[in-house]
Amino acid sequence: MSKAVGDLGLVGLAVMGQNLILNAADHGFTVVAYNRTQSKVDRFLANEAKGKSIIGATSIEDLVAKLKKPRKIMLLIKAGAPVDTLIKELVPHLDKGDIIIDGGNSHFPDTNRRYEELTKQGILFVGSGVSGGEDGARFGPSLMPGGSAEAWPHIKNIFQSIAAKSNGEPCCEWVGPAGSGHYVKMVHNGIEYGDMQLICEAYDIMKRIGRFTDKEISEVFDKWNTGVLDSFLIEITRDILKFDDVDGKPLVEKIMDTAGQKGTGKWTAINALDLGMPVTLIGEAVFARCLSAIKDERKRASKLLAGPTVPKDAIHDREQFVYDLEQALYASKIISYAQGFMLIREAARSYGWKLNNPAIALMWRGGCIIRSVFLAEITKAYRDDPDLENLLFNEFFASAVTKAQSGWRRTIALAATYGIPTPAFSTALAFYDGYRSERLPANLLQAQRDYFGAHTFRILPECASAHLPVDKDIHINWTGHGGNISSSTYQA
Amino acid sequence: MSKAVGDLGLVGLAVMGQNLILNAADHGFTVVAYNRTQSKVDRFLANEAKGKSIIGATSIEDLVAKLKKPRKIMLLIKAGAPVDTLIKELVPHLDKGDIIIDGGNSHFPDTNRRYEELTKQGILFVGSGVSGGEDGARFGPSLMPGGSAEAWPHIKNIFQSIAAKSNGEPCCEWVGPAGSGHYVKMVHNGIEYGDMQLICEAYDIMKRIGRFTDKEISEVFDKWNTGVLDSFLIEITRDILKFDDVDGKPLVEKIMDTAGQKGTGKWTAINALDLGMPVTLIGEAVFARCLSAIKDERKRASKLLAGPTVPKDAIHDREQFVYDLEQALYASKIISYAQGFMLIREAARSYGWKLNNPAIALMWRGGCIIRSVFLAEITKAYRDDPDLENLLFNEFFASAVTKAQSGWRRTIALAATYGIPTPAFSTALAFYDGYRSERLPANLLQAQRDYFGAHTFRILPECASAHLPVDKDIHINWTGHGGNISSSTYQA
Repeated sequence: MSKAVGDLGLVGLAVMGQNLILNAADHGFTVVAYNRTQSKVDRFLANEAKGKSIIGATSIEDLVAKLKKPRKIMLLIKAGAPVDTLIKELVPHLDKGDIIIDGGNSHFPDTNRRYEELTKQGILFVGSGVSGGEDGARFGPSLMPGGSAEAWPHIKNIFQSIAAKSNGEPCCEWVGPAGSGHYVKMVHNGIEYGDMQLICEAYDIMKRIGRFTDKEISEVFDKWNTGVLDSFLIEITRDILKFDDVDGKPLVEKIMDTAGQKGTGKWTAINALDLGMPVTLIGEAVFARCLSAIKDERKRASKLLAGPTVPKDAIHDREQFVYDLEQALYASKIISYAQGFMLIREAARSYGWKLNNPAIALMWRGGCIIRSVFLAEITKAYRDDPDLENLLFNEFFASAVTKAQSGWRRTIALAATYGIPTPAFSTALAFYDGYRSERLPANLLQAQRDYFGAHTFRILPECASAHLPVDKDIHINWTGHGGNISSSTYQA
Repeated sequence: MSKAVGDLGLVGLAVMGQNLILNAADHGFTVVAYNRTQSKVDRFLANEAKGKSIIGATSIEDLVAKLKKPRKIMLLIKAGAPVDTLIKELVPHLDKGDIIIDGGNSHFPDTNRRYEELTKQGILFVGSGVSGGEDGARFGPSLMPGGSAEAWPHIKNIFQSIAAKSNGEPCCEWVGPAGSGHYVKMVHNGIEYGDMQLICEAYDIMKRIGRFTDKEISEVFDKWNTGVLDSFLIEITRDILKFDDVDGKPLVEKIMDTAGQKGTGKWTAINALDLGMPVTLIGEAVFARCLSAIKDERKRASKLLAGPTVPKDAIHDREQFVYDLEQALYASKIISYAQGFMLIREAARSYGWKLNNPAIALMWRGGCIIRSVFLAEITKAYRDDPDLENLLFNEFFASAVTKAQSGWRRTIALAATYGIPTPAFSTALAFYDGYRSERLPANLLQAQRDYFGAHTFRILPECASAHLPVDKDIHINWTGHGGNISSSTYQA
């Protein structure tokens, strides 16, 4: 009979699995590694895992037998059906109170479902976002666990030990019930799409309007990485842009400009549409990847569709141009995070989750792909006021956006004038100007809907009168020959 | 035993149902009207239906008994469960070959499901988009039928008689299989959201930058309605803006600026995300309604968040300002329709539907909310080349966008500079500049993804070499200390 020595079982030995096991072993935990393909386990044990507190398992039974109770088994396998299959295999061998942790990129409705199913069987279930790529998993990821609250005391020590640290604090805290952990990871991935798209638009503007070389752009990113934009993505962009191929030319310029996407950003955009939250920047970032993917069609279009020519002297003041661009990137990034937290706020309300915003910001502060100094400010903003309605209502961010505005507006006007696509920059500014508008042109839209479909409208309180009462759904016979039936049942 | 005299049975006597029955009666058809609430049938027969070839039914059995074979029963009831309930009640009384037509705003996956289920029972099923609001239903809607092809010969005469006409041609043609009719209606509704949002942004710019009165804006719309923008929505906007309340003030300025939405525009945006098509304008139009809906939060934000003040003399040349705005609206509208037809093209490919683009454009040419002269040009473009890859590849539209560009770009730069939100205008231009770009900055994005998650990238053919082969998924060890495992199985 195998001895129960394992603190943690981990199933799935791809990039993330191997690195997370090594990380846990470095922190003194004994990990039992298992993978459907036994040769992968053997090769891992004979190489990277050698001499570490890592033991292999040859079967599910063997894995379970080698774990201390309550058993803690983390899955790092492909999202979807494989997770359900593995859970079915595991459960018969487990006892009530044992813990299954899904660390893959599962879609939060699946995690909600698995949480319900397993709770009925007395098994504790945790869906945890894991972010930070290869290096993050190895040396300190951001971990976003949620699900069975009773599991947290049992896994807290392992999770917070292996997680990244920010000023000594682990970038890992309990998020909330059911699928909330995977939900917060989904929003993280959406924001990641947004950050990356904004950086790409800044690079495109510098290249196509400023005519900077990749090395010059890298230097700009290097300088930006010492300021408000200091972050992992800005840092790796600096390094990518000065990474030459063997012929001395920038490798990045040889890379096919068709963006892949695994779908998590799309989930965020769809969820925003479902919850009715204007998360426009993530929407545009996902669509920008779709537009990049139709490369052949774009090539044909480039031969047919005209646009302005960028004059050589388009930029008179190089320093101002770069300064403005930094402001545009910073302000747009603030908008993207404000939208992301608006979505989290609405999800908590709609799904009945009590979520901990300061902890979420802290979780993202280190270890994950969007880690940045910026997130320390967000953590502080939510610690100062956990019920902060919107990031833009925080004094620091409101003044930051105000200060960045003129550069932001000049950059967008420049790109529009010279034909460089800025979907993310532009939608961030449009959102900001819409969000701070007490009056939006939706009054005209409501009149149109009532005119053609009798959808009714409401009156502004300050304009109410006897025949136009406040808080009433009003239908006007705009044409004089339409019927008087309001169409609350009819959908347009 | 009731005599089978009815050409068409119609269930549901709300706004659309009553008007469609009256329309069919005007065209010489005998219609059997039925509604769950009998008093609605009696009131309708005693009033609007009096003296017309319209007879009432007191039950489902009575309705079926009064219809000639193959029986044709059209449902105009609330989408969702009510349709399934009614179908269940109807089917036991029908014979093989009878036809059920769902004319409500059903979601096309539901229509696909009902089509499959009813086909197995030998019942022909049609899901038909019906557009045009009250007046359209009464005097000639746009009808978009799809489903069981065998049903079309039996309903073609009724449908094409009651449909709107454009240059003598009915705005009704068979769309294609299963849920394709409701799919095309869904895209129509998404485009409708886009058209309305663009008009609202033009109105907002004229009001807040041009300081035009509503009457002056109405005159601009009146003039625009004689040009390339001639359309139902421009026309009703002209009328809405000069519709005064009893106190002589424009009613529209008293209407609450929170837009309602019944969800069909959201379906289009979600479908675009699912099919990976960059339908950005509809996405922004849906999100703009969401942003308008958080009115109280916007009010608080307006007190906190700064923006530029529009100087009195912001507009030096009023005529140029209006001309530019017309170009921006026209160019953005072309982009919106180009995106809509890209989505239809991809849906046909993904769902295996053979769709008839010229017919779709013709269906939208009259009767529906987006009816316009513009759609005659689209019909012509697709008739000239049914396999037209993109509307922007058509000579007429490519030159129209080229001509409109400078006004379009000046309008967006002006709005960005003076703080007026233009999410739809801006995303249209960003799409255009991205679509016509042979190179987009997604090369940098692919490098970032490979850097942090080993997601691999491809090489541009013209840059391929021995160590960077074309058509291969390449992973680079950017940092020198990352592993060499590519993460095709890992999701970021």
